[in-house]
Amino acid sequence: MSSPPIVSLLTDFGLADAYVGVMKGVILAACPQCRLVDLTHEVPPQAVVTGAYLLESAWRYFPAGTIHLAVVDPGVGTSRRRLALAAGGHILVGPDNGLLSAALPDAIRGPRRPGEAYSPRLLPLPAGVEGVAIEPGPGPVSATFEGRDVFARAAARLAAGESLAGIGAAVRDAFAMPAFRAPQAADGRVHGLILHADRFGNLLTDIDAASLPSRPIFRAGGREFRPAPTYGDAPGLAAIVSSNGRIEIAVPNGSAAAETGLRPGDAVLVEAAG
Amino acid sequence: MSSPPIVSLLTDFGLADAYVGVMKGVILAACPQCRLVDLTHEVPPQAVVTGAYLLESAWRYFPAGTIHLAVVDPGVGTSRRRLALAAGGHILVGPDNGLLSAALPDAIRGPRRPGEAYSPRLLPLPAGVEGVAIEPGPGPVSATFEGRDVFARAAARLAAGESLAGIGAAVRDAFAMPAFRAPQAADGRVHGLILHADRFGNLLTDIDAASLPSRPIFRAGGREFRPAPTYGDAPGLAAIVSSNGRIEIAVPNGSAAAETGLRPGDAVLVEAAG
Amino acid sequence: MSSPPIVSLLTDFGLADAYVGVMKGVILAACPQCRLVDLTHEVPPQAVVTGAYLLESAWRYFPAGTIHLAVVDPGVGTSRRRLALAAGGHILVGPDNGLLSAALPDAIRGPRRPGEAYSPRLLPLPAGVEGVAIEPGPGPVSATFEGRDVFARAAARLAAGESLAGIGAAVRDAFAMPAFRAPQAADGRVHGLILHADRFGNLLTDIDAASLPSRPIFRAGGREFRPAPTYGDAPGLAAIVSSNGRIEIAVPNGSAAAETGLRPGDAVLVEAAG
Repeated sequence: MSSPPIVSLLTDFGLADAYVGVMKGVILAACPQCRLVDLTHEVPPQAVVTGAYLLESAWRYFPAGTIHLAVVDPGVGTSRRRLALAAGGHILVGPDNGLLSAALPDAIRGPRRPGEAYSPRLLPLPAGVEGVAIEPGPGPVSATFEGRDVFARAAARLAAGESLAGIGAAVRDAFAMPAFRAPQAADGRVHGLILHADRFGNLLTDIDAASLPSRPIFRAGGREFRPAPTYGDAPGLAAIVSSNGRIEIAVPNGSAAAETGLRPGDAVLVEAAG
Repeated sequence: MSSPPIVSLLTDFGLADAYVGVMKGVILAACPQCRLVDLTHEVPPQAVVTGAYLLESAWRYFPAGTIHLAVVDPGVGTSRRRLALAAGGHILVGPDNGLLSAALPDAIRGPRRPGEAYSPRLLPLPAGVEGVAIEPGPGPVSATFEGRDVFARAAARLAAGESLAGIGAAVRDAFAMPAFRAPQAADGRVHGLILHADRFGNLLTDIDAASLPSRPIFRAGGREFRPAPTYGDAPGLAAIVSSNGRIEIAVPNGSAAAETGLRPGDAVLVEAAG
Repeated sequence: MSSPPIVSLLTDFGLADAYVGVMKGVILAACPQCRLVDLTHEVPPQAVVTGAYLLESAWRYFPAGTIHLAVVDPGVGTSRRRLALAAGGHILVGPDNGLLSAALPDAIRGPRRPGEAYSPRLLPLPAGVEGVAIEPGPGPVSATFEGRDVFARAAARLAAGESLAGIGAAVRDAFAMPAFRAPQAADGRVHGLILHADRFGNLLTDIDAASLPSRPIFRAGGREFRPAPTYGDAPGLAAIVSSNGRIEIAVPNGSAAAETGLRPGDAVLVEAAG
C-alpha cells in the first residue's frame, strides 16, 4: 500500500478562528486520502521573514513528496503571483513574497548585507527548481482568503497527483530572502540577527555554528555571551548550537528573551576572544 | 477505496489541556479510520454565539458526510438535550443551545431584531433537517465532560456508519440563533453587530455584503468606514467583504480591533451616503 | 483492514514554533500510516509534574496499542535516560524524569507526603511493565532537540511495529511521581494540592472524590468550598467531581482561578463538616 500524500501547513492565521480548519476541509474535499500536518499557524501576523525561516527549518524533515502549503500574505487579493515551487523532491505552495525562500539554494539567495534586515529579492530559479504561477480555478475567489480559494485547492490538486503544469504556467524567477546565514563584515566580525524567539524564550539567530572563530564571543544589547554545549551545562545566559545548526541565546530553565529584553530584528555580533 | 469518514471538532476547551486530545482518543477507539480536523478550540469560554458563527462559516467547506462535533456547553451536566442534526449532507453534533444553528436555514431562523443581541430560540425542524436527542450509552457520564462521554462517542458512532436513529430518539425542534444577517430597521439603516475579532484584529460583522445600499457608510464607535476591495487597497481603516460574504472592518497590516477599541457585541450601522 | 497505529504527542514546545510539526514529519517519514493526535503542547515550559498529570488523565482513553510520545525535558542533551515503557497495552516514550509516571501503578508510586510537592523518585518496574533505555540511532543528535532526533524516531519505529527490545536495552527502574492522590494526614484531614488550572480557570486538584468524608469542606486560600453536582447547579465557587475522578474548584460561567487567586501548587485541605 503506497503512502498517503502529506500536506503540511504554515500560516499566520492563528488557531482562534476557523480559517485553518476551513483550508483543511477544502483540501480533504479534493484529496480525501491526504495527511494534514500543522507546522505552525502562529507566525506573527504578516511576518513573512519569520514564516520563511520557520518553513526552512522544518520542511526537510518531511518525507519526499510532501506538499508544504504556506500562507503569510499581506498582499492577499492584490496582483502578486501565487507560486508552486518544486525543489528537493518537495513542493512549496504560497504567495510570491519570499515566504517560499527555502526552495532556493543558499548559493542563489546569496548573503544578507551586514547591518541590513532580511527582505525579498526577485531571483532566477536555478536548475533543479521548477515553478509555476498558480491559476485560480473557475470558482469565486475571496479578496481576503486566497488560502481557502486558491492555495488550499492548488495544494490539494498537487497532493492528489496533478502535475505542476496542470495548475499554472511556468515561471523562471521567484522572490526569496537572502540565505539565513549571518554575513561576515570587512571588520572580520559576523553580523548576526535574531530571527525568532521561541516558546521557551530562546533567541534564535542566523549565525551559522559551523563558521565561527575558535573562541567566539557573542555581543548583543550590551551583553556578552559565551558558548555552552547544552542547556543543562550553561551557567546562565549562553550561546548554544540550536537544532537547525544556528546559534541561539538561551538560559537554563528560563527565558533569554525575558532576561535580556532582546527580540527578533536585534543584532548579535560575533568576535574572536582577544 | 472509499474516503475515510471525517469528524471536525469545534470547542471552547482550548489547547492547554488534554481535553481535546482525550475526545480524539475516544473517537479513534470507536472509529479507527476517522479523519479528525480541528475547526478551532479557542472559542471564548461559554461563548455559544461565537461558536455557532464560526461553525456556520466553516462547515460547508467540508465534504458531504462530514460529522461536525461542536461543544460549547455552559449547561454541561444539566438536563438540556444533546442533539445530532442532519442537514445538507452533513451531521452536526452538540448541545441543544443554539450552537448548531447552522443546521437550520436562515428562512427558518428569521431575523434578529434591530438593537438586540443574538440569543437562541426553540424552532421547528424544517423538511430536510432531521434530528435526534442523543441517548448516552451504558458507560458512566462525567457531569463536567460530556464532550468525552457523550458527544465524542456519538460522533464516532455516526462516523463509523451508525444511523441517526441508532443513537437517539427523533426530535422535532431545536434551539437556533436568528440568521447571522443584520436586519434593516424601519429607519432604513442596517443594524449590524460585530460578531468576532479574528487573529489579525479584523472585526467580523453580520452585515451581508449582498444587501447594501449603493454607496454605503459604516458607522461604529463614533467613526465612519468606507468600502475597499482588498486589504492592500485600503487607505486605512475600511469595510471589506470578508470571506464569508459579510462585511469586516479591517486595516492594512494592522489590527482594526486595537485601533478602534471596537469589540464583539458592538453595533455597526450602515447608511447610504448622502 | 487493520487499524493504523496511533501516536499521541504531549510536549511543552508550544504551537508558535515548528518543533511539533518537525517531530510529526520525522514520524511520518518512518511510519507513513501513523495517525498523529495532539494531547497538548502547552504544558508550561519545563513543568514535568503538570505534563505527567495531563498524560495520566488522557492516555487510557486511547485504543490499546497507542504510542504516547511525551517530551517535557529540562535535561535535554544531558545524560538522563530516554525511556520507552510498555504498560496496560500502551507504550509511553519520553525522558526519564517522572513524565511517564502514568506507566506505573499507584500502588508502586505510593503516596505523596502531606505538605510536600510532587517530585520524581526512582522506582522498580513492577510485573506487567516493561521498559527500555532508548539508544539513539546512527544519525546526529541535536543537544537541544532530542524530541526530533531521538524520541520521535523511537516512537515511529515502535508504531511501525518494532519491538521494545529493538530500540534499546531493558531497564528495571524508572523515575515516577507519587500517585496523584492527596494523602490523608495523621490529623484526619486530606492534604490536597492544586495540580493545574484549565482553560476555564477550573482548579484541578489531586483529591480523590471516592475517598472523601461524608460531608466534606474544602479549604484553600482562606476560603471554604462545598460540593456541587454540576457547574450549572453550583451557587458560586464550589467543589465538583472532575472528569478524572478528582475534585476541582470551579464557578459557573466564570474562572475560579481568577476569582480566588489560587494556582497550581497551592494547598487544599479537606475536613468533615462539624
